Amino acid sequence: MSVVQLGPTHPLNSDTRDAWLIAAYRGERPPMTPVWFMRQAGRSLPEYRSLRVGTRMLDACLTPELAAEITLQPVRRHGVDAAIFFSDIVVPLKLAGVEVQIEPGVGPVFAAPVDSPAAVEKLLADHPAEALDGALAPITEAVQRTVAALRMLPGGRDPLIGFAGAPFTLAAYLVAGRPSKDHLAARAMIHRHPDAWAALLGWCADVSGRFLRAQVLAGASAVQLFDSWAGSLPAATYERHVAPTSRTTFDAVRDLTDDAGRRVPLVHFAVGAGELYPLLDLDVDCVGVDWRTPLDDAARRIGDTAVQGNLDPALLGAPWPVLRDAIDDVLRRGESATGHVFNLGHGVPPDTDPDVLTRIVDYVHSA
Amino acid sequence: MSVVQLGPTHPLNSDTRDAWLIAAYRGERPPMTPVWFMRQAGRSLPEYRSLRVGTRMLDACLTPELAAEITLQPVRRHGVDAAIFFSDIVVPLKLAGVEVQIEPGVGPVFAAPVDSPAAVEKLLADHPAEALDGALAPITEAVQRTVAALRMLPGGRDPLIGFAGAPFTLAAYLVAGRPSKDHLAARAMIHRHPDAWAALLGWCADVSGRFLRAQVLAGASAVQLFDSWAGSLPAATYERHVAPTSRTTFDAVRDLTDDAGRRVPLVHFAVGAGELYPLLDLDVDCVGVDWRTPLDDAARRIGDTAVQGNLDPALLGAPWPVLRDAIDDVLRRGESATGHVFNLGHGVPPDTDPDVLTRIVDYVHSA
Repeated sequence: MSVVQLGPTHPLNSDTRDAWLIAAYRGERPPMTPVWFMRQAGRSLPEYRSLRVGTRMLDACLTPELAAEITLQPVRRHGVDAAIFFSDIVVPLKLAGVEVQIEPGVGPVFAAPVDSPAAVEKLLADHPAEALDGALAPITEAVQRTVAALRMLPGGRDPLIGFAGAPFTLAAYLVAGRPSKDHLAARAMIHRHPDAWAALLGWCADVSGRFLRAQVLAGASAVQLFDSWAGSLPAATYERHVAPTSRTTFDAVRDLTDDAGRRVPLVHFAVGAGELYPLLDLDVDCVGVDWRTPLDDAARRIGDTAVQGNLDPALLGAPWPVLRDAIDDVLRRGESATGHVFNLGHGVPPDTDPDVLTRIVDYVHSA
Repeated sequence: MSVVQLGPTHPLNSDTRDAWLIAAYRGERPPMTPVWFMRQAGRSLPEYRSLRVGTRMLDACLTPELAAEITLQPVRRHGVDAAIFFSDIVVPLKLAGVEVQIEPGVGPVFAAPVDSPAAVEKLLADHPAEALDGALAPITEAVQRTVAALRMLPGGRDPLIGFAGAPFTLAAYLVAGRPSKDHLAARAMIHRHPDAWAALLGWCADVSGRFLRAQVLAGASAVQLFDSWAGSLPAATYERHVAPTSRTTFDAVRDLTDDAGRRVPLVHFAVGAGELYPLLDLDVDCVGVDWRTPLDDAARRIGDTAVQGNLDPALLGAPWPVLRDAIDDVLRRGESATGHVFNLGHGVPPDTDPDVLTRIVDYVHSA
């Protein structure tokens, strides 16, 4: 993939290079286990819900002041060790010109599914990935605002993690044209039209890579690629038809280094992907583990890479002694890994009591 | 669980005891690998679609002539080695008096979610599982009609597999009141209200067990328990809070034996349950394997039990040489198992070309 530079090559944000999160992603053991929560910026917070009143999801993602403020809310409230850039998996598709809306209670709905070789050809002709570069200004501005505000917080060293959806997850939405249970339309296209599939996935990787690169160039200190749907694939299919393009997405930022020459930490997270763990380390620094697999088992299968996770979100409403035992279990299992960043095994559910999240942060830091 | 007898103890249907399917479930190697398809009775068949016009799903399930005819259609058309009883996971709940509809495009929707200890208490008080026994006549009649018709087919030895949803899957629907993506409401209840959870799951097992027992007493030659959602659980949670009640469901039919004293073959299938394979053999004869895990890997993890599966349904639309290679791969991997029944790794997708299924049956039989 040819990567268009957004101005001269910037080094990676170096202010945060000694942050606990970055150290843990590099396989070190900082004084406390760093902790953040997937979807910490979002519906579990009352301050988020009031900010979002009257604003549609994708409009919120593309309004820099709003996206920055939403990204910062959980950092201020919970004292987590990282901000995660508030966005949506389909944002880079929209920025590339694809017509998509997020319907409340449904998810992303596209004007037309990309479900045939002809539809793939049309997508690539109408929306070349390069078009994204002219549309990334709201992302760059939102990241710059966020990073500037993070510098003003006590300590001033909280890193921002850049966010993108993995090519397979983007393609699964595009092929079905909307959320689906088993992603069968995408999985069928792999075998029925392997060339069209490869072209579609390559386009998705290009779009995702540009989206991530813009975030790092604007000040993000690490990146996480979210593959929500890779768990629907057998390992052989994933390895042959999907993993190479996820690697390509990471390649878009591998050259970005801090002032000590260390590259931006890369985090790869796939949901329900127990069968895929041996394949998820695409030369990355950390693999996210969902709630289904004990963290030490996952670490063994993944290999010599830091892990992130993996408290079962189903425990967030449990009595504190039950929840505390589960946190202890995750921390104990995490000790055997190369590095460990505490997180949930999936996103924060919307009905979570935010005080429980704050309590978890304090407990993990005191453990 | 106390099991109410539907009349005197009948032995298991002995007409089918030498059928290839039954032999394979018992770990033998019949002359040809038996094959059937999950959801073979259903929307992929034009004769099913015409039969269902104007009839709602649950009404079709509870009309004996219709349920029997739908069950028979794929046996006549494809020459599969088994019929699977046409029903729906929520049918036993409806027969127990729970108010539920299947909304097209959505799935089961309940009048009220069973999402608190009080709601569980009310469910158990209003709908004792014993009430099911007085309502099973349409199931008994449908099974009897099916078995009588199967005897009239060439060969006359095609077994009918009884069908029921596993307690966790029933409970996941009841707690959420409708389909959900992660079954988080049910998974949270396990940890927040473990006593109410245990009571709810025990009730579901009782209902499922009575539903299965009625089918065997009416002539079904094997039973399969479908746990659509168990894959959302970590192994430790499944083992402690779920597996014992799935075992209880099987216990409801374990005493039913054929005229040679051999018990009804028990098949356990859970979707996306890679982490659970070492736990799925609840003293059963066969474990179903979904499409994600290579069949030989799964067989190793499961232990000394027959396996069923596991062609990826995503391949059904692929060019024949690609599909044939995938079938060969499944058959080759199945050779290492104690016994192997060929199947898909999940249900037949509605848009499947039925001729492809027939071709697969012929190919597996000729392999």
